[in-house]
Amino acid sequence: MTGSKTNPGRYFEDFRLGETIVHATPRSLGPGERALYIGLTGSRFAVQSSHDFARAIGYASAPLDDLLVFHIVFGRSVPDVSLNAVANLGYAEMRFGATVHDGDSLTASSTVIGLKENSSRETGTVYVRTEGCNQRGDVVLSFVRWVMVRKRDKAAPAPAAVVPQLAESSTLDLPALLPETIDLAGYDATLGGSAYLWEDYAPGERIDHLDGMTIEESCHMTATRLYQNTAKVHFNQHAEKDGRFGRRIVYGGHVISLARALSFNGLANGFRVAAINAGRHVNPCFAGDTVYAWSEVKAKTELPGGRAGALRLRTIATKNRPCTDFPSEGHEVLLDLDYTVVMPRR
Amino acid sequence: MTGSKTNPGRYFEDFRLGETIVHATPRSLGPGERALYIGLTGSRFAVQSSHDFARAIGYASAPLDDLLVFHIVFGRSVPDVSLNAVANLGYAEMRFGATVHDGDSLTASSTVIGLKENSSRETGTVYVRTEGCNQRGDVVLSFVRWVMVRKRDKAAPAPAAVVPQLAESSTLDLPALLPETIDLAGYDATLGGSAYLWEDYAPGERIDHLDGMTIEESCHMTATRLYQNTAKVHFNQHAEKDGRFGRRIVYGGHVISLARALSFNGLANGFRVAAINAGRHVNPCFAGDTVYAWSEVKAKTELPGGRAGALRLRTIATKNRPCTDFPSEGHEVLLDLDYTVVMPRR
Amino acid sequence: MTGSKTNPGRYFEDFRLGETIVHATPRSLGPGERALYIGLTGSRFAVQSSHDFARAIGYASAPLDDLLVFHIVFGRSVPDVSLNAVANLGYAEMRFGATVHDGDSLTASSTVIGLKENSSRETGTVYVRTEGCNQRGDVVLSFVRWVMVRKRDKAAPAPAAVVPQLAESSTLDLPALLPETIDLAGYDATLGGSAYLWEDYAPGERIDHLDGMTIEESCHMTATRLYQNTAKVHFNQHAEKDGRFGRRIVYGGHVISLARALSFNGLANGFRVAAINAGRHVNPCFAGDTVYAWSEVKAKTELPGGRAGALRLRTIATKNRPCTDFPSEGHEVLLDLDYTVVMPRR
Repeated sequence: MTGSKTNPGRYFEDFRLGETIVHATPRSLGPGERALYIGLTGSRFAVQSSHDFARAIGYASAPLDDLLVFHIVFGRSVPDVSLNAVANLGYAEMRFGATVHDGDSLTASSTVIGLKENSSRETGTVYVRTEGCNQRGDVVLSFVRWVMVRKRDKAAPAPAAVVPQLAESSTLDLPALLPETIDLAGYDATLGGSAYLWEDYAPGERIDHLDGMTIEESCHMTATRLYQNTAKVHFNQHAEKDGRFGRRIVYGGHVISLARALSFNGLANGFRVAAINAGRHVNPCFAGDTVYAWSEVKAKTELPGGRAGALRLRTIATKNRPCTDFPSEGHEVLLDLDYTVVMPRR
Repeated sequence: MTGSKTNPGRYFEDFRLGETIVHATPRSLGPGERALYIGLTGSRFAVQSSHDFARAIGYASAPLDDLLVFHIVFGRSVPDVSLNAVANLGYAEMRFGATVHDGDSLTASSTVIGLKENSSRETGTVYVRTEGCNQRGDVVLSFVRWVMVRKRDKAAPAPAAVVPQLAESSTLDLPALLPETIDLAGYDATLGGSAYLWEDYAPGERIDHLDGMTIEESCHMTATRLYQNTAKVHFNQHAEKDGRFGRRIVYGGHVISLARALSFNGLANGFRVAAINAGRHVNPCFAGDTVYAWSEVKAKTELPGGRAGALRLRTIATKNRPCTDFPSEGHEVLLDLDYTVVMPRR
Repeated sequence: MTGSKTNPGRYFEDFRLGETIVHATPRSLGPGERALYIGLTGSRFAVQSSHDFARAIGYASAPLDDLLVFHIVFGRSVPDVSLNAVANLGYAEMRFGATVHDGDSLTASSTVIGLKENSSRETGTVYVRTEGCNQRGDVVLSFVRWVMVRKRDKAAPAPAAVVPQLAESSTLDLPALLPETIDLAGYDATLGGSAYLWEDYAPGERIDHLDGMTIEESCHMTATRLYQNTAKVHFNQHAEKDGRFGRRIVYGGHVISLARALSFNGLANGFRVAAINAGRHVNPCFAGDTVYAWSEVKAKTELPGGRAGALRLRTIATKNRPCTDFPSEGHEVLLDLDYTVVMPRR
């Protein structure tokens, strides 16, 4: 009777269409996560940095960073969904809901919405919709992701293929993005970090975020542990030395956070991530790499109430290559992210 | 008049049997220590991660990790007890008391309970009982440790040898482990991370915790500074390059924390450390090492009230060696720990 | 329309004498910053470590470390003042005001008090007075610093040179240092960490702080990001590999914090930094360097109320050189700091 009590991770055969998996380790967030997230990413958005600034626009306190919330919810799902994943293939329909504040406790669950065995019969693609809720049951985040998972037994029969239809862009959770309590008349753009507001951005505009951030093993591992994400490739050099790259791989979410933090320089007033429409980790990132980023404005939408607008952005992160010429392809591209932020209007 | 105001650390001659040393720097713990502890160890126990989960079983809020409390109390004692230690020889009779919650302030003191000069007359063994208390005077932790300390003067007379009788196992502080307010009927094992509860474990059972965690200099130093542990060997590469190993040594307590965090995979519902019966740092650990761990169930005890039981465990941590075959000896073994955890019953 | 929305930093021509620049990203501080600051520096001062200890002398809660407050205020000013700085030339007249407590939100602004083009016409010196305030408008910190900044255009006309007269020593903000609520009768020197109080120090006395702390890339970058200090030289190895030193430079403020933390061993009861009279970063510091420090007592002043005194100190930090012989010159000297601390009297 040995080893039987550890979590081996689910194989393709272990997923049932329609089942909902409640993930372990609910998590409270608070001032510790806020400070550590700033310390690990250098994020400077005013709404998440200052209770006073947040209160001036109607929040009860500074919300925690949207991407921190994403990492926490995502991290919960790893042991149940992607421990035996060969690859994280993508995500879609990610939308952010209620803001998370100090002391809130999050739980997460995932529902299997698609299953498709691959032609090799050695792996299959699993589609899940993952949802995070606070202690009042408000949804703070919902997204679809799909991963390629190993089969335990190649010969095992596979269910009929079901591939969900995924929207090209996320819907926005408008009541949560702009609840009635929020009044952007109190938004101080000087303190926000930029004179540029929603009206000042135009579709097609490109912004080089200029700065670069070098990643250390200790930094990405501490971030990923903070999220209680247990994917082995980020932590175990003894195993990875014999792996595909000979070294630990940086959690792709850490690259997203760094790109978002760098984007402050040019998009400082984009204070809330409303949605991630699509995202792709194009190449792996390793300790020692320096992350740069640039963004293109894809589209603009007015939001109800007249005080804010949404900017749909494409942000590209690169490694060891400044983004002066807006690179979008090649081995130096780490991330290609399509997401939407909320920005105050004049 | 130079240098006279610094703490040179106590030599063997400076300890008096029966004296109690009050340690400096009382310490408040809170959300910052909680987040940083998770970030540095990856610990995932639900009770310590979520206020909501903790409240469901009767805590006023999520207690801080028991080992964090240990490190804080231990850290206080270092400048007074072990600054001139040649070796940390062992600890015993460690029992955890009142849980520590956000905002609690801890103080620590040590009483000298044994002194024995070594035959070389150059060193002696000092036994202390160290106790940590919260701001209400409740004991949060009590343990005995013994260290080999240099004599200032080989010729100095030594007191008559007194060696305390130490119990083979710690007693449990039951009123603190299971106060009346705790009701484990509210314990949700799914959120806890495992379907296995106290009844499911059997003496002799061995569990390989599977995962490995590589240690970076920055991670172990940040952890050890967080505990305000000042032992020089962890921090000063300039001095250690000429020392015994040519490099900094990882604080042994960090290895204990990593082993406990890894043990979540197999022992997820062992939500409180009740006692450490004995512990030995078998070999030194260095940055770059990957820590693995396995555990054996040594004994099971019912606890009053019928809702929980104690598991006495032996956990072995290794470096750079997976624990598939349960190694317990050799240069790859870092830690051999005999401790007791509380787990809910069905 | 590319790149136009990023902050290029001000050039010499962009500063106007007398203008006040309000800095972006107001910042709340709390238990997360407290824990992370301890984790990154190892600071052990009792007043900042324990709410209970702080309350015993009349604080409502433990104040946050004065140097953490300095780094936060300084960090805010970097994007507006020193992004194009060739060199940070010095600071003066730094005085600490109201203590900062958990949940306080800080804002910062800088007023241009001097401008002087250099003879090369390629750069100029900018003098600013930077002030940090809490959410009630109380000043928490005020200081002058001057930096050498590039001109955008060598041929651009320069304003008439104005160089402010700077005091040789900072005045003390006594009402803030010793408000009526503070009663040092409750100060417990044993818990404070040293038997030595203000009376025990004599001008001319030198103290070797003994311990050394090795800096890792991850530690100094996490500290500097925590302060949201965006100076590129600390973070971007890809750019710095071709720079003056071939590597990232440690934020000089991190060295100040380490020197202050090391000074606990010898100056444990110097519980508040009252002022920094002058400071010079003598040589650059890099990851891998081990920081040591020593201090000389320059002067002593009684403070009103009879319970406390001020010690004016010179603290020298070195790299890779123990301070047994009190070195004050040479390539191993990192920092030469003239500052004033408050210490209880008998």
